[in-house]
Amino acid sequence: MPTSPKKDLTLDPENWDQMRQLGHQMIDDLFDYWQSIRDQKIWKPIPAEVKEFLDQPIPEQGQDPAKVYEEFKQNIFAFNKGNVHPRFFAWIQGTGTPMGVLADLLASGMNPNTTIGEHSAMYVDRQVVNWCKELMNFPSEASGILVSGGSMANITALTVARNSFGEEQIRQRGLKAASAQLVLYCSVETHSCIQKAAEIIGLGTDSVRKIGVNSNYEMKVEELEQQIQQDIQEGLLPFAVVGTSGTVNTGAIDPMEDLLAVSRKYGLWFHVDGAYGALAKLDAKYAERLKAIEEADSLAFDLHKWLYVPYEVGCTLIRDAKKHRDAFAITPNYLLQESRGLSGGLDSINNYGFELSRGFKALKIWMSLKEHGRAKYAQMIAQNNRQAEYLGMLVAQTPELELTAPVSMSITCFRMVKQGLSEGQLRDLNREILLRLQEEGIASPSSTILNGKYTLRVANVNQRTRMEDMDLLVREVVRIGNSV
Amino acid sequence: MPTSPKKDLTLDPENWDQMRQLGHQMIDDLFDYWQSIRDQKIWKPIPAEVKEFLDQPIPEQGQDPAKVYEEFKQNIFAFNKGNVHPRFFAWIQGTGTPMGVLADLLASGMNPNTTIGEHSAMYVDRQVVNWCKELMNFPSEASGILVSGGSMANITALTVARNSFGEEQIRQRGLKAASAQLVLYCSVETHSCIQKAAEIIGLGTDSVRKIGVNSNYEMKVEELEQQIQQDIQEGLLPFAVVGTSGTVNTGAIDPMEDLLAVSRKYGLWFHVDGAYGALAKLDAKYAERLKAIEEADSLAFDLHKWLYVPYEVGCTLIRDAKKHRDAFAITPNYLLQESRGLSGGLDSINNYGFELSRGFKALKIWMSLKEHGRAKYAQMIAQNNRQAEYLGMLVAQTPELELTAPVSMSITCFRMVKQGLSEGQLRDLNREILLRLQEEGIASPSSTILNGKYTLRVANVNQRTRMEDMDLLVREVVRIGNSV
Ligand SMILES: Cc1ncc(COP(=O)(O)O)c(C=O)c1O
Ligand SMILES: Cc1ncc(COP(=O)(O)O)c(C=O)c1O
Repeated sequence: MPTSPKKDLTLDPENWDQMRQLGHQMIDDLFDYWQSIRDQKIWKPIPAEVKEFLDQPIPEQGQDPAKVYEEFKQNIFAFNKGNVHPRFFAWIQGTGTPMGVLADLLASGMNPNTTIGEHSAMYVDRQVVNWCKELMNFPSEASGILVSGGSMANITALTVARNSFGEEQIRQRGLKAASAQLVLYCSVETHSCIQKAAEIIGLGTDSVRKIGVNSNYEMKVEELEQQIQQDIQEGLLPFAVVGTSGTVNTGAIDPMEDLLAVSRKYGLWFHVDGAYGALAKLDAKYAERLKAIEEADSLAFDLHKWLYVPYEVGCTLIRDAKKHRDAFAITPNYLLQESRGLSGGLDSINNYGFELSRGFKALKIWMSLKEHGRAKYAQMIAQNNRQAEYLGMLVAQTPELELTAPVSMSITCFRMVKQGLSEGQLRDLNREILLRLQEEGIASPSSTILNGKYTLRVANVNQRTRMEDMDLLVREVVRIGNSV
Repeated sequence: MPTSPKKDLTLDPENWDQMRQLGHQMIDDLFDYWQSIRDQKIWKPIPAEVKEFLDQPIPEQGQDPAKVYEEFKQNIFAFNKGNVHPRFFAWIQGTGTPMGVLADLLASGMNPNTTIGEHSAMYVDRQVVNWCKELMNFPSEASGILVSGGSMANITALTVARNSFGEEQIRQRGLKAASAQLVLYCSVETHSCIQKAAEIIGLGTDSVRKIGVNSNYEMKVEELEQQIQQDIQEGLLPFAVVGTSGTVNTGAIDPMEDLLAVSRKYGLWFHVDGAYGALAKLDAKYAERLKAIEEADSLAFDLHKWLYVPYEVGCTLIRDAKKHRDAFAITPNYLLQESRGLSGGLDSINNYGFELSRGFKALKIWMSLKEHGRAKYAQMIAQNNRQAEYLGMLVAQTPELELTAPVSMSITCFRMVKQGLSEGQLRDLNREILLRLQEEGIASPSSTILNGKYTLRVANVNQRTRMEDMDLLVREVVRIGNSV
């Protein structure tokens, strides 16, 4: 049975020099790409033969690494999404930075499973979570965990909220054992991941009360309180209020102080979804309105959005570290902690979330914050907000255009209008503008529907955008719109 | 308000040439590291001053990128966990490969949010999911999603299983609305992430029935069936059976055929946790015993374990694509799909899982399978299994050592024994051997407890391990054990 050592196989390169050379080539290709990104088309349609190439069965045999890389360049690299481009404004998708990417290279190269054990990545992860608390002015005794993004950050927090509720021992006994249906409150503008979280953690869609918003798309507090009272009267169990700091549609900010007060009054968990906009706290203009975030029981925010680090990374902070740990901690036999050696060290990170194996996503945040410092990020975030305001001003000054929502944070919603067009025709017009902007490779806004109106939506968490890009965007929208 | 374009800030490098140079330096440092890894210590204790350095407040100002990299090298790179090393056998943690790492570099550099839209990453992601089906011999109409790892793969599948249960409309109405407590079945050797999943999705710890195992650590089918019948009699709602293909402790394989048959008989969802060992299907020795996996309703398996790609990536496959989508699909207004342009293309991936934003983790699998082909992976997996068997044979031949479980897949559990020592003393002896192996930088097994016995555990999903490393390990265990 024992094979001779001669025959040992490996997946390491047969030709190390060639693979190393390929690595250097990739670095050069990426830098060339980034350095010229402003002059490139933001988007290109994918040719049929490329789609066909990407629809083949699994390869049985390997091929030369250089050939693999060539195929990558031709079929994959050439048809990138574009959120690295200075005029990418679709959805809320960050740009990344060169240093962030290089940190991902190093993290992947070290490849530490960052969950358990005594090794440097565990300390970097802890430090970055502490920096996240500092960014948000959360108390240092709070706990936190880095997760894959805003959706996971929200569901992680809501799981803790659910388990912390009442005497029901929900972690142990499940929701079936609850004395009545639990309910949570958010606004109609709340991101869909909150509903998804409620569905996943077993509360169901029905448990989500979507409260109406005012003309600024902010949650109506009186309606919230009425709904809570009504639910209590009906014997339901209100357990959490979710406020949004920066709604995905319009960047609206729910009235944080009021939501906090209502939560305290009724003994509810106050969670803030700041996936997009919690970091607006760093912009002096928003600091005051977002102050109450610091009092939240939990906070979810993304670093792959407005901290501009590459995908994926978000963060959950939980005020009460014990509740956090009590929701997730399990120690199986094979993860025994020892007092020394590899199995020593800090508390295992799987005690604070869904995942066991985790990558070293902390490193890109660590290297980025080291490179630029907190102050620079504050300036960058403020700059995006000023760019959105500037775009709003340009829209207001342009007769063919109208704002469809107040500018808030770094989101500007507007559309072209023409005399005598119906709502349906306006939708078709603006959709055509959107598609041509993308197809001509000029810029990538996205769209949404506000008060039934199809609208262009410029969401800007882009570290490459310049003020002049806003001028260009307005010019091109008007040009295309007039030519349709 | 409009600032002059002159003042536009960016996080791109001030000095592009320096940053590019740094990228080249990192490539060289990583390749030097990998090429010499066999001659390096697998683990080093972290000095107090390094821990102190990694416990400083958030930097307010930035610093030179070269300095950041220097700090990284001294404080972080130097104290890596070691799962890239040929003698890392702790927990079940993959090694990664150079090509996988370079793919991570490219994925991060392109930085596409791989959830929605018409761009190449979406097609690569789909292709890789299809390759995963091929690897597992799942039908092509099945659906699947790449997630961060085995824990997420399992919870994703169990959420679909739960939502697919009965007429209870659990997604809509929540578990409170179920007519009784749902229960799922697994063995006492099942990974803790199954219990965690049950807790998170609102079933509670109590919903998990841990069935006993035989002397090979495989689930006892009669006990399973008895428990199901008893639960039905008591008015509970059995809904899923979880079989494990490769338990984390000993690599045991639950009797898949039997579990499938019992599941069908009682109308239960049959889920397989193959996080570690589903890929053992590729080894002819295990193909037959794992055949029934192909009939499972859902399957979770990891690619960062036994496909040796860098962290993080796992996969969930669901036989019934409609049930999969019905469990997760939500389309908010701002994610409108268009027929052309950037917002065209394939079905959004967030319709199949917890996450919205996702990185381009498919690329490392794509490039790795292109580089080596399926056949080579089959050989590699078989090689790890043969190494484990070889180690088992060495242990059997060494009077000072005893096997503590049958060798299964690539896990070998054993311990040193000495005449006249109590169980407690044997535990202390073997723990000391483990810690010294790590502290002397020789090898990193981990430990577990089997039938109350503290045992050394060599779990091998390492593409750098050679047969000779097994000889060395046994030699060193005996040497250290005799010197304690
Ligand atoms: C307000 C808000 N919440 C949650 C999310 C989800 O975050 P992620 O896409 O990182 O999962 C988003 C994404 O845009 C968001 O804007
Ligand atoms: C059998 C089994 N299931 C699930 C998991 C969890 O997988 P992950 O660590 O990727 O979350 C593991 C991890 O070792 C495992 O061995």
